[in-house]
Amino acid sequence: MSDTALIAIDWGTTSFRAWKISAAGEAVGEIITSSGILSVKDGAYDAVFEGLLGEWLDANPGVPVIASGMITSRTGWVETTYAPLPTGVHALAGELRAHVTSRGRVIHFVTGTAVNPADGLPDVMRGEETEVIGHLAASEDKDALIVLPGTHSKWVHAEKGVITGFETFMTGELYAVLLGHSILGRLMADGPSRPESFRDGVEVARTSGSILGKLFSARSKVLFNRLRPDEVAEYLSGMLIGEEVRTGLTRYGVERPITVVGRGDLAERYLVALTLCGARARTAEPGMARHGLYRIAQHAGLVA
Amino acid sequence: MSDTALIAIDWGTTSFRAWKISAAGEAVGEIITSSGILSVKDGAYDAVFEGLLGEWLDANPGVPVIASGMITSRTGWVETTYAPLPTGVHALAGELRAHVTSRGRVIHFVTGTAVNPADGLPDVMRGEETEVIGHLAASEDKDALIVLPGTHSKWVHAEKGVITGFETFMTGELYAVLLGHSILGRLMADGPSRPESFRDGVEVARTSGSILGKLFSARSKVLFNRLRPDEVAEYLSGMLIGEEVRTGLTRYGVERPITVVGRGDLAERYLVALTLCGARARTAEPGMARHGLYRIAQHAGLVA
Repeated sequence: MSDTALIAIDWGTTSFRAWKISAAGEAVGEIITSSGILSVKDGAYDAVFEGLLGEWLDANPGVPVIASGMITSRTGWVETTYAPLPTGVHALAGELRAHVTSRGRVIHFVTGTAVNPADGLPDVMRGEETEVIGHLAASEDKDALIVLPGTHSKWVHAEKGVITGFETFMTGELYAVLLGHSILGRLMADGPSRPESFRDGVEVARTSGSILGKLFSARSKVLFNRLRPDEVAEYLSGMLIGEEVRTGLTRYGVERPITVVGRGDLAERYLVALTLCGARARTAEPGMARHGLYRIAQHAGLVA
Repeated sequence: MSDTALIAIDWGTTSFRAWKISAAGEAVGEIITSSGILSVKDGAYDAVFEGLLGEWLDANPGVPVIASGMITSRTGWVETTYAPLPTGVHALAGELRAHVTSRGRVIHFVTGTAVNPADGLPDVMRGEETEVIGHLAASEDKDALIVLPGTHSKWVHAEKGVITGFETFMTGELYAVLLGHSILGRLMADGPSRPESFRDGVEVARTSGSILGKLFSARSKVLFNRLRPDEVAEYLSGMLIGEEVRTGLTRYGVERPITVVGRGDLAERYLVALTLCGARARTAEPGMARHGLYRIAQHAGLVA
């Protein structure tokens, strides 16, 4: 007999991650692929879903399915509305959007979250709210400043266990398009990791002036042999993450400890940049997306 | 008998412009193509040069040839060094680099200009120095703040007729890569010119905070119907040009009048953004590249 009480999915722009979760909240199976929504052709989400999870669904016929991430965006499978702020596990559990797949299985989609002030810029997120819910549930600290690095990096502010504000920085995407498509990539070469070049980039970002007037130094420094071709990528990464961190800390200050919810090398870069900029930072335990999905499912009554 | 005293070339990244110039400094012939250095395959500069200017060269065998622009960069025809600051028409005329083409004709290349402070970021330009020389020669104002919009926009500061400082902003290239390769281009649609969306973008850039945290609003505003798909490009253009103008004016203040050396719609955008940000701005007469090349050739003794 299966121990699976929930099938939970984090379906983002560039990745698909799914877990079988026991009644106790433990992962008892995991599928991680690069089948993000960008890789799904002609909206064939149902077929991709069946291909990736068909065996799990066959073997667990009565088990509920929950999903979060960019899969609920305008270019995803089922577009959901956005929960307004403040929002937390109760509100998100109350706004799940049920969708019946071709095989007749119900997926409960977690909606996204938005701010849309009349006198300011709107902002949206899909998926990160679930990771934050996971962290808030797992952590003692219900008042938290959480940074989620990525293509569209998010800074999320929570009070008393609910999300009260957030901002998006296009840091990861800017890094990718500048290296891949601008003149800054022309003088670049591959090489070993260069942590000192990353730190140089952070320091440049910390000084006054706009990033728009500093980016070109990733080329001009190479022309004057002040940066090696195999250091360009690290230097640019440092400038962009440094600019994000500088901006975030200008808003929130350095007194409050910051939790980085992310994995591997990228989370490590954020820790380095935050520390260089005077903040106290730590990384969250892994598994926050899975944990957030489980908690939302619990509050919705999908699992005991 | 030919009236041509000089063949002058502005060979940039994305354009090739050449003029036959009379002894009086007037253009008596013009060739404008999109054969910038990016379009030249396998370094075949000599062949492209012959193809574009062969008839002029045949018809004007004794006439000197001068060229400026990215053609002297590391990825151009002949890489030249950079003149240090301060620099002006005398220094540039004294540092022309002669190159003999396959047909035995000499091209006099204008070198680029650089700053490379030990305690700051280096910066380089190739071509814009010649346009500035042209403007300084044509203008009464020898102390000038000159903005040259483009892929890599330049702010150039001149005192007593010589260039004393400059900065590069990657504004044009950032606009192109974000619309062409990032998520911001996904919700974009073509449409008529939207000057009010451009102005909205400038206003967003003027408020505090980093551009890195504002770019995403070119998507989120569309999701909330606060920006139409056919307004995305104008809004992004306004944000980026506004950020450049805000940064430049933070450094130089708004007291000094600013001259925009550029053409058409782009120069007009800069005038609008500069005016919105409280500066006094005007556009230079057209033909500054040609005029600068002529002045440098004069000082080098290539023309009387």
